[in-house]
Formats: sequence, structure tokens, C-alpha cells
Amino acid sequence: MCQLFRYAGAVDDPRWLDEREQRAWRGYLAMQARLHARLNRRLQDDSGLSLSDFDVLVALTDRAGGRTDGEVRMRVHELADTVQWERSRLSHQLSRMQRRGLVEREDCEDDARGAFVVLTDEGRRAIERAAPPHVAAVRELVFDGLDDGQVDALARIAEIVLERVGS
Amino acid sequence: MCQLFRYAGAVDDPRWLDEREQRAWRGYLAMQARLHARLNRRLQDDSGLSLSDFDVLVALTDRAGGRTDGEVRMRVHELADTVQWERSRLSHQLSRMQRRGLVEREDCEDDARGAFVVLTDEGRRAIERAAPPHVAAVRELVFDGLDDGQVDALARIAEIVLERVGS
Repeated sequence: MCQLFRYAGAVDDPRWLDEREQRAWRGYLAMQARLHARLNRRLQDDSGLSLSDFDVLVALTDRAGGRTDGEVRMRVHELADTVQWERSRLSHQLSRMQRRGLVEREDCEDDARGAFVVLTDEGRRAIERAAPPHVAAVRELVFDGLDDGQVDALARIAEIVLERVGS
Repeated sequence: MCQLFRYAGAVDDPRWLDEREQRAWRGYLAMQARLHARLNRRLQDDSGLSLSDFDVLVALTDRAGGRTDGEVRMRVHELADTVQWERSRLSHQLSRMQRRGLVEREDCEDDARGAFVVLTDEGRRAIERAAPPHVAAVRELVFDGLDDGQVDALARIAEIVLERVGS
């Protein structure tokens, strides 16, 4: 992701980030990039899924609540809102997942916005296999290093930023 | 990015995230996805760059230190390490930026790993135009909402995670 930086033209800008903010922002960006890359590689090695596959499957299984049987389906535009990807990225991702049998698409004749994504049995098995080692990786790389105060601070920071970013 | 979730098969896993950790992790993932999407849109609207363009240009100008003149060049494999993208993503990104005149590539006849990316004058002007409104967006969406303790907590959390993730 992006980094902020000093260059001659911006040093005098009164809204420039100060040292403390620079440290936090650069740290956040580096953490986010490296953690994503590392979790993606671990997931690929452990279960053959990418984090993008995982995101889509999680969004679908979240939609199912606690149920582990019955059909799970979600409108494409709701899925786009959940994962926060550009429409073209989501479309390519769903095509790849459909070829691998993880999801199916059901188009809606009357309304393009009404198209559904459906979780397949293979998709369900894939996420059930992938989740335990992925959680172990998240714990190892993040939570095993943080104390309770830091975990709560992270949750609070996320709430504050999400409120500012809006939906 | 990925989310963690509860599904029947994993509830009994003793390494599952507890409520406090779930709140932090889901919050972090949602913040990261929405903040990235929002900053990307703002940057596009303000200056016609994507966050990916911005990342590459920042990596190059960071390399230049405080200098705002003279040629700035960086080896492709160092750039890949800085932005933490897969090699194919970086290659496509550099092709797009080259077509738009933001960077040039210099291949090395003897050694494919030795290829360089060079910042053009147009690339330098683009980042100088883009940075001030981008910093303003980061401040508005993140730092204006956080107190000093939260800023320091974010920096510390990032340091801890980066140490665990390794390089």
C-alpha cells in the first residue's frame, strides 16, 4: 500500500504528518503489506487458497451464520460491498473460483444487479480445511505478540477509523 | 483482505480467536479494506493516480532521500521487496506506469535481476502533485480521530507484528 514520505515540496505544508504520526503510518503500511503477503503465502502453502479466495468464501459462510448445510447465496453487489473490491477485480476473482468449482454464479435475467454467487460443497470443504491453519498463522504472527491492552487498542483504532471512513 | 469467522467445525479448536481478538482482527481487516478503497478513490479523484502508482513513486522518491534533482533509479527486485507485491503484479504495474510516462525501465543485458526502474520527470511531478491532498486524506480519515496514546499504540503494534512477520 502507499507510504507517506518527505520531499522538498511538502516539508512546509502545515498539515504534514509529524514524527509520531509518520512512525505510526509507515509502520501501519509496512505491517499491512508484509502481513498480507505472509498470510497469503502461508494460506497457499497450507491449503492452496489465496487470501482473495478466502475472503470470498468467508463472506459467503458468514452470510450462512452458524448453518453448515443448505444453500448459501449472496448477491454480487452485496459481496462487492463486503470485500470492498472494485467490480472488475471481483468479477475476475469469481471467474477463477467458478472454474475451480468453489462457487457458482446464477444470473438474473431481469436485472444484472440481481446476479447471485452460490457457495458449492467444494467451496465449503475448502474453507473448512483452510481456516484452522490460517487462524494459527494469524495467532502466531499477530496475537501471540500483543497484550490485552494492545488488542483492545487495535480494536478501538479500527472502530474510530471505520467511523471516519464511513460505509 | 481475509476475515476470520466462526463455523461449526472450528468452534472447538483451542487455538480459535477469543471474543476480544475477534473484535480486533475483524476490525483491523475491515479498516484496512475500507481505508484502502477510500484512499484509492480520493487519490484517483484528486490526482489521477492509483495507490499502486503512488506506492511505486514513493518507493523511488524515498530512495532519492531529500534530493529533488538528479536521476533516481532502483533495481526491480529491491522495488518488489519494498512494495511486497508478487513479481507478476509489479511487472504489470510497471508496464502501465511506463506507458503513462511515469517511469522507465532499463534492462541489464547480463543479468535479468539487474534491471532498473527509473523515475521520470513526469513521475516526479505526478507524486509532488499527488502527495499533499493524499496526506490531507490520511489525516482526515485516520490521525484527526486518534489521540497521542492511540497513535503510539498503532506504531508499537506495527513494530511487534513486523518483528514477528520477519523480512
